[in-house]
Amino acid sequence: MANFTHFNQDGEAIMVDVSQKDITMRIAIAEGSIKVNQEVFRSIKEQTNKKGDVLAVARIAGIMAAKKTSDMIPLCHPLFITKVTIDFELDEDNYMIKAIATTKVNGKTGVEMEALHAVSVTLLTIYDMCKAIDKSMEISDIRLLHKEGGKSGVYDYEK
Amino acid sequence: MANFTHFNQDGEAIMVDVSQKDITMRIAIAEGSIKVNQEVFRSIKEQTNKKGDVLAVARIAGIMAAKKTSDMIPLCHPLFITKVTIDFELDEDNYMIKAIATTKVNGKTGVEMEALHAVSVTLLTIYDMCKAIDKSMEISDIRLLHKEGGKSGVYDYEK
Amino acid sequence: MANFTHFNQDGEAIMVDVSQKDITMRIAIAEGSIKVNQEVFRSIKEQTNKKGDVLAVARIAGIMAAKKTSDMIPLCHPLFITKVTIDFELDEDNYMIKAIATTKVNGKTGVEMEALHAVSVTLLTIYDMCKAIDKSMEISDIRLLHKEGGKSGVYDYEK
Amino acid sequence: MANFTHFNQDGEAIMVDVSQKDITMRIAIAEGSIKVNQEVFRSIKEQTNKKGDVLAVARIAGIMAAKKTSDMIPLCHPLFITKVTIDFELDEDNYMIKAIATTKVNGKTGVEMEALHAVSVTLLTIYDMCKAIDKSMEISDIRLLHKEGGKSGVYDYEK
Amino acid sequence: MANFTHFNQDGEAIMVDVSQKDITMRIAIAEGSIKVNQEVFRSIKEQTNKKGDVLAVARIAGIMAAKKTSDMIPLCHPLFITKVTIDFELDEDNYMIKAIATTKVNGKTGVEMEALHAVSVTLLTIYDMCKAIDKSMEISDIRLLHKEGGKSGVYDYEK
Amino acid sequence: MANFTHFNQDGEAIMVDVSQKDITMRIAIAEGSIKVNQEVFRSIKEQTNKKGDVLAVARIAGIMAAKKTSDMIPLCHPLFITKVTIDFELDEDNYMIKAIATTKVNGKTGVEMEALHAVSVTLLTIYDMCKAIDKSMEISDIRLLHKEGGKSGVYDYEK
Repeated sequence: MANFTHFNQDGEAIMVDVSQKDITMRIAIAEGSIKVNQEVFRSIKEQTNKKGDVLAVARIAGIMAAKKTSDMIPLCHPLFITKVTIDFELDEDNYMIKAIATTKVNGKTGVEMEALHAVSVTLLTIYDMCKAIDKSMEISDIRLLHKEGGKSGVYDYEK
Repeated sequence: MANFTHFNQDGEAIMVDVSQKDITMRIAIAEGSIKVNQEVFRSIKEQTNKKGDVLAVARIAGIMAAKKTSDMIPLCHPLFITKVTIDFELDEDNYMIKAIATTKVNGKTGVEMEALHAVSVTLLTIYDMCKAIDKSMEISDIRLLHKEGGKSGVYDYEK
Repeated sequence: MANFTHFNQDGEAIMVDVSQKDITMRIAIAEGSIKVNQEVFRSIKEQTNKKGDVLAVARIAGIMAAKKTSDMIPLCHPLFITKVTIDFELDEDNYMIKAIATTKVNGKTGVEMEALHAVSVTLLTIYDMCKAIDKSMEISDIRLLHKEGGKSGVYDYEK
Repeated sequence: MANFTHFNQDGEAIMVDVSQKDITMRIAIAEGSIKVNQEVFRSIKEQTNKKGDVLAVARIAGIMAAKKTSDMIPLCHPLFITKVTIDFELDEDNYMIKAIATTKVNGKTGVEMEALHAVSVTLLTIYDMCKAIDKSMEISDIRLLHKEGGKSGVYDYEK
Repeated sequence: MANFTHFNQDGEAIMVDVSQKDITMRIAIAEGSIKVNQEVFRSIKEQTNKKGDVLAVARIAGIMAAKKTSDMIPLCHPLFITKVTIDFELDEDNYMIKAIATTKVNGKTGVEMEALHAVSVTLLTIYDMCKAIDKSMEISDIRLLHKEGGKSGVYDYEK
Repeated sequence: MANFTHFNQDGEAIMVDVSQKDITMRIAIAEGSIKVNQEVFRSIKEQTNKKGDVLAVARIAGIMAAKKTSDMIPLCHPLFITKVTIDFELDEDNYMIKAIATTKVNGKTGVEMEALHAVSVTLLTIYDMCKAIDKSMEISDIRLLHKEGGKSGVYDYEK
């Protein structure tokens, strides 16, 4: 059996014991994108920071989702997240909206899952709010961009 | 302003009034994939339906997530989902694992978000369980494959 | 003992049996206000439907809270809310912000608690977002304005 | 734009970074009142610490709500609350019931929202349990009475 | 493989499709007991329906737990429970406290799990409140006493 | 009134103030059993670590439940659990399945309730998945086996 940390030697799922780990500052940044059609893209773009701001609602959803990560991911440790931000980048050529989540904690485990979960719910919320116009939207490229803190140190995504 | 159903004419977010909608059988199918490295792929594949089955854990997470969709997506209606299944397809050539969620409800609103949310949490759970081996995994191609029921009728994804 | 419906004849708390009640369209409207200082009032007002819109965030919080009412209020029945809207009225003379929640359901029990809970969380979210500027804000006048549907019929608040 | 700490300079909602804040003992006390009619007031009063004790149920609801504050208030940090108490004062002249919540934490952020949220749900629970008798009850005067701990130090409500 | 309804023919966990089932009135009654020591038993008994009523708190916990059953039990369908009551029987000879939960729903699936979950959390709450006095308490005899409604009809526990 | 720590001197429920307690490593081990019929027992046993593994699903449910303990038990403090494992022992002579939960935290309060709650939900999940075959299953012998850490020190169950 591979070295899955979330199973013990008998192949039984466990919440890994992190009791002995140091409390360090941990940061994670994750991103993901949703491809929409032209109509949706323009509407979202025009209304950013105005009335009917889809991205503002999606951002709130993403921040709240970061706090609920350990409720959704079975073997994920609960933690006291100390920062969440969600940023957006709009790619006009491809009608893509990119969401970038940054999470921080002073804790014994990393906040990668919190950042990834925040991105995922942010993009799903965009889908939900625009699906009456376009059902063919696709969510892609959800990945960890950066992490630091803890024993495994720094990770940076290489394109 | 575009025809976003989740904002009223003043650009204010609303949970749309579905009181007058008919209760019909509604079905949704969504999919999404995670690209892993060779080591992760082989380990997941070998242990399917055995000890240490990553996909079995991810499936449970996805099913439970379907039930929590309206908690995570701000303007999504709560509903009494009557079926959730999660299937997997393993693409050996590309080290891709595809998750497919099917959801059903007899209700006034569709279950597209439930299927998409189930797929998303299923894939995030795979990421969580394998991230000690490979942090560069990517989640992509989350999309609605099919929906039926309700006034807007049948939708099928066209490749 | 008074005729508290949420206790049985032995004074024991119960979730009242509503199995035999008819499913009817039920509507509730509740309101409540927060008194802020001049600086907070002006900032909130200026940024409505713009960048940094406190009320837009509070509205999302209120809508999501309506869905969680039966989780917070012990003897409240769970239900499938079919509509939630949150409106605001700004009283410039008194630096008061009023939140008005409208909820609907086709069900066996009313949605009064959902409307009251939505108002309450909406106002608490305004407090949270402005408390770095003003800690002396006060939330008042949370009350049911209107209800209809069900055996007890229509209720309207009389000033 | 005003100095809303929950928005960044671009007007985007954020969960504020508290990573660098010190862990200190933080205390908050909040209060709020519900005005009921004579019948409700007498019944509640007579049954305090007896069978059918409305306030005992409301107290449990308030304590549980304190623990769920960061689930309901979007930009509120999760924290490990170390104390919650709910006290009541009955004002016989005005048929008012006052709830007072005291919360404590050793943490990087204050517990004001936890105290305010506990008060709010306590009063809503009283409303819920008495609404079959009186629908015109009103919740008012929810405010922070006292806070201490953290960089901003002590705050006391001035009447 | 045995006829586990919660796995499909490939041994994959599913939330069973109940879309085609009839909506009928469904009732379940479950019970369970906690054995405490003499001191705990007497204290609980003396304070029933008075100040410091352990059973009153446990009852609220059980009612709230019934509403959260599908959040805790992975393959359990969400449903709109229409009644929950928790009764207690005190067995003085054996220092046993029995909790009996009755649940009802008009729905497509039964409420057995809701009744069993309510009993379980009721008893755990008694344990929590008394554990400073006695850590050796034991919870036993959690079982379904009765169910009715749905295709499988009536079930009664035979001693 | 007995020395119930969860009530104050007036008999009012409180979440006990643990602010002044030391943060120490705390461990708890709890167990509980479910008695099933022969058919259920054999099926569960045959499929352990294979397709259709009931115990694997129940284990996930138990781990997730440990994280939700303070949501379900009213006066239980929230905490950042650092380890959860669920082990099973199969007693072939009596068709009993025993679940054993081990929980750990570095905190101000113990993790006994987390271990007991995990055991309870693990066993309820087994019940749920097997109830189509056997409704007469009984859950028993839920108790604390061991705890350590904190002021009250070590406790071991004596048979």
